Amino acid sequence: MSEAMQTLEGWYVLNDFRAIDWTAWKSLSKQERGRAEDELYSLLAQYQATEDQREGSTAFYSIVGQKADFMFMHLRETLEELNELETAFNKTLFAQVTIPTFSYVSVVELGSYMAKPGTDPMEDPDIVARLKPTLPKARHVCFYPMNKRREGNDNWYMLSVDERRGFMRAHGMIGRSYAGKIKQIIAGSIGLDDWEWGVTLFAEDALQFKKIVHEMRFDETSARFGEFGEFYVGNLLNRDKMETMLKL
Amino acid sequence: MSEAMQTLEGWYVLNDFRAIDWTAWKSLSKQERGRAEDELYSLLAQYQATEDQREGSTAFYSIVGQKADFMFMHLRETLEELNELETAFNKTLFAQVTIPTFSYVSVVELGSYMAKPGTDPMEDPDIVARLKPTLPKARHVCFYPMNKRREGNDNWYMLSVDERRGFMRAHGMIGRSYAGKIKQIIAGSIGLDDWEWGVTLFAEDALQFKKIVHEMRFDETSARFGEFGEFYVGNLLNRDKMETMLKL
Amino acid sequence: MSEAMQTLEGWYVLNDFRAIDWTAWKSLSKQERGRAEDELYSLLAQYQATEDQREGSTAFYSIVGQKADFMFMHLRETLEELNELETAFNKTLFAQVTIPTFSYVSVVELGSYMAKPGTDPMEDPDIVARLKPTLPKARHVCFYPMNKRREGNDNWYMLSVDERRGFMRAHGMIGRSYAGKIKQIIAGSIGLDDWEWGVTLFAEDALQFKKIVHEMRFDETSARFGEFGEFYVGNLLNRDKMETMLKL
Amino acid sequence: MSEAMQTLEGWYVLNDFRAIDWTAWKSLSKQERGRAEDELYSLLAQYQATEDQREGSTAFYSIVGQKADFMFMHLRETLEELNELETAFNKTLFAQVTIPTFSYVSVVELGSYMAKPGTDPMEDPDIVARLKPTLPKARHVCFYPMNKRREGNDNWYMLSVDERRGFMRAHGMIGRSYAGKIKQIIAGSIGLDDWEWGVTLFAEDALQFKKIVHEMRFDETSARFGEFGEFYVGNLLNRDKMETMLKL
Amino acid sequence: MSEAMQTLEGWYVLNDFRAIDWTAWKSLSKQERGRAEDELYSLLAQYQATEDQREGSTAFYSIVGQKADFMFMHLRETLEELNELETAFNKTLFAQVTIPTFSYVSVVELGSYMAKPGTDPMEDPDIVARLKPTLPKARHVCFYPMNKRREGNDNWYMLSVDERRGFMRAHGMIGRSYAGKIKQIIAGSIGLDDWEWGVTLFAEDALQFKKIVHEMRFDETSARFGEFGEFYVGNLLNRDKMETMLKL
Repeated sequence: MSEAMQTLEGWYVLNDFRAIDWTAWKSLSKQERGRAEDELYSLLAQYQATEDQREGSTAFYSIVGQKADFMFMHLRETLEELNELETAFNKTLFAQVTIPTFSYVSVVELGSYMAKPGTDPMEDPDIVARLKPTLPKARHVCFYPMNKRREGNDNWYMLSVDERRGFMRAHGMIGRSYAGKIKQIIAGSIGLDDWEWGVTLFAEDALQFKKIVHEMRFDETSARFGEFGEFYVGNLLNRDKMETMLKL
Repeated sequence: MSEAMQTLEGWYVLNDFRAIDWTAWKSLSKQERGRAEDELYSLLAQYQATEDQREGSTAFYSIVGQKADFMFMHLRETLEELNELETAFNKTLFAQVTIPTFSYVSVVELGSYMAKPGTDPMEDPDIVARLKPTLPKARHVCFYPMNKRREGNDNWYMLSVDERRGFMRAHGMIGRSYAGKIKQIIAGSIGLDDWEWGVTLFAEDALQFKKIVHEMRFDETSARFGEFGEFYVGNLLNRDKMETMLKL
Repeated sequence: MSEAMQTLEGWYVLNDFRAIDWTAWKSLSKQERGRAEDELYSLLAQYQATEDQREGSTAFYSIVGQKADFMFMHLRETLEELNELETAFNKTLFAQVTIPTFSYVSVVELGSYMAKPGTDPMEDPDIVARLKPTLPKARHVCFYPMNKRREGNDNWYMLSVDERRGFMRAHGMIGRSYAGKIKQIIAGSIGLDDWEWGVTLFAEDALQFKKIVHEMRFDETSARFGEFGEFYVGNLLNRDKMETMLKL
Repeated sequence: MSEAMQTLEGWYVLNDFRAIDWTAWKSLSKQERGRAEDELYSLLAQYQATEDQREGSTAFYSIVGQKADFMFMHLRETLEELNELETAFNKTLFAQVTIPTFSYVSVVELGSYMAKPGTDPMEDPDIVARLKPTLPKARHVCFYPMNKRREGNDNWYMLSVDERRGFMRAHGMIGRSYAGKIKQIIAGSIGLDDWEWGVTLFAEDALQFKKIVHEMRFDETSARFGEFGEFYVGNLLNRDKMETMLKL
Repeated sequence: MSEAMQTLEGWYVLNDFRAIDWTAWKSLSKQERGRAEDELYSLLAQYQATEDQREGSTAFYSIVGQKADFMFMHLRETLEELNELETAFNKTLFAQVTIPTFSYVSVVELGSYMAKPGTDPMEDPDIVARLKPTLPKARHVCFYPMNKRREGNDNWYMLSVDERRGFMRAHGMIGRSYAGKIKQIIAGSIGLDDWEWGVTLFAEDALQFKKIVHEMRFDETSARFGEFGEFYVGNLLNRDKMETMLKL
């Protein structure tokens, strides 16, 4: 097997961003709004039950700015389950007052750049926990997709495995210095969506998103090879916060 | 004839992606929904009949994420037939609750990079079967368009035929190592649509899409010369699964 | 006069692409649909009359895929006439069930790269016929806009006139080898629309579009200097075919 | 003051492009259409009065193709006046049947590359007339935004002032050779809109737009350093022509 | 800590751009318009109260051209407060006649490139005032997002800290020469939105926006390393001006 094939994959991921059509929301009768909220909270409860059974995990965050009003991040064993989650949501009355704005399909990934040689990483319960994680309930979230660049002399995929390993080791050092401040889910999306990775960061202090991405940008791995898509940042939602958000 | 003209072409291809307007679907009466489904399933039956008669082939998949809800991939002998398929679908009641999101026009292609010298490939029944294939009913699908890059020193079309043949041979080796795991339809679209090829992969295990595209990215053919468009990934549909999807 | 000014211009061109809003079409009464079709066919007859009088020419094609349902390609003596054609169409009932999707403004052009030295090309009836042509009624059409690249070492406009002439001669050789298979209208659009040229190809066999654009891509003129926009491909329309397309 | 600060500015400019929603226009009653036209022609009369008082100038052109149906080009002393023109138009009944498609904000600019050393250009009535011009009523208009490139070795802003002056002198020679055929308004938009300049050309013969832009493209200033946005081309409008255009 | 981490952060920022749907505004009854305006002015009063209490600041400007009709720029201590401001606005009747067009999330930032060595900048009341500023009520505003380039030899993040400091010192000299003419709020958005910074400039004379951005473009920091997004320019709004704008 080639030197490229050094990743481990876990649950599939759907980051699903939606805006609220406030005029449509307000045009519902009080009774309809009640029913729409009931359906939504029933879905939230189902997501929680799946998480409790360790068969998946779901994060629920508001998004700041006009790109979206909220994001679901769903982790499930199969692409079919992700499709079913979408369809079930789309059939709700609440979905009728929302507008899809962006989504991203990926699969939780661990690069074996970090694996110890001579071990089977799937024997390691810590690695399995990272491949099929329960998402944190941190105060803030940050999502962005990214590529490794392939341009002229800055072509990541033309580097030797040793060069890549060296770059990733330095890169990982920065990441580890944020342990306790940031929890990250790296999900691979080559062959699944438009960028090569989808990165979701969780933190109690949203400034840490800026600090880690900024610090990494001076690292050669990002400086020469990182290409970044849109950034989404937001705040933890739950049933109570959603009730407040939707209250007219 | 120039060294460029070394491809064989078979059936024309239309990859046709559509979203469902769920609010419109739910606003139909039960009777209208019944009629809309009947029309859809009647089309599916017609597509199957065409396939049974070896006059074309159609694949039908759901799509994960917001890019689309489902994709038809139609293979037919002429562009006129593809146009007629579109128009017939557009006249149905079901089409009224769908929103076109993306389409791609191409023609099944075999590069003669792989042909044995001194033979007429059209005499080879295996090649004919690959040019006018019956699409697999695999559990998952992946579609993406791609180009060969023409930038500065990374200009595929300025390479000699020997260089290209060498690159493609190494590339093909990776492809062959996925035999039994992935079935691919390569369709040329120079002069037909916005990229140079449309690639459709079929697999029982969706992770294989990630593995093959990832592994190939380290191959010089992709690393230096591959440019990729949007990736769509999805799950097999049929009448039963569609009934479940549409059930309110 | 500078070495750049070596083109001849004929009729102005409007390639006008539109989709049909099938839900709107179906929502018209049978009587309204009849009136809408009458207005459309009356315009088609006017276009034909203009062509018969050699005061312009119009081609009418369906488009495969979601980019459009049909294209009018109008050639007229002045930009005002093109504007009037648009406005007249927009006022019809049929226009109400269509959605503009793309248009391109240009002027038929002959580069004097191909002109014999010492002759006045406007004295040549063949050249006049090519500048003010009657568009063919071929089975298939292909439209795309293109630029000559201006990037780093691949800057067409920094080449000497001799270099450009050499490149264009080789390029023209490929074109001539498709005589009888493809008829092309090259229209210049520098200063008129977003690309430098709009190319419309006509052929009985749509595969020839793929073959010529593919073969030319290995030619240095395209390989190093060609930048291409969206490709539209389609099938000949006329009153009979349109009646079939619109019939519910 | 640095070598960069060598421009003179006059009136602010708003190029305002709009499409007509013909279905909405046709859905108005005859009486409403009459009122809508009255409001529009009243605005046209106000624009003319402002021009007569030398407090601004307005050009009014149709646009060929689907990018827009018409363009207003307003020149005024302040940004507030431009805002008020927009708001006044938006409140009319006619505005309800139009769709904004593109706008561009800039300020009429003269580069002192062309100024004679040792003179105060604002003392020159010709320069003042060029900074606060009455727009011509030529038969055709052409608008496009542009940048000077900043890429690798083709970085306009890293050239010395002498190099830039040399390039601009050659560039200006071409421009002057079109005196009498083309009148141009160069407006700077650094810090005001998305490109560095907005260029509006006026000519009796629309082919001159193609000829000047084409000829300049071979000039090193454009060939190496010119980046161009969308091109809009159109025909002179006035009350009479607009009445014809809107007549059902 | 690495050499990258040399910034100070203050209040979070939301630049929120919206267009007015004039047809919807005019379709409201006089009474509804009155209520919509009351709700809007009540929000303006709340923003003012927050500013009076030094718990945030809000600027309110019209925007020239079709990109938007007005912009709110909100500064608050937390991302949650920004989310709440959005939601409160979205629930108003006035919001129903507006269309979101663009937003930008960032955090007020001071680079310590300008900090004196050996001092704790947070002890400096001037610095604290710049991190949590009361926005000026200048006549004009200009907003644009920007990046530092990472391309080939023009890769800002591969420069040494001394090179960057040298470039920024020259850049800052230009900025300081505009003291009294322009007040700028630099907000970092790495990890928060799609560009690395959001820049908001305030001036009594809008020409100063053009002059400073133009002058800086010749500075190597911008010439080689500056990448710029869309520019928005506008005029001060307040309750009186808004009443005039909305009056039918």
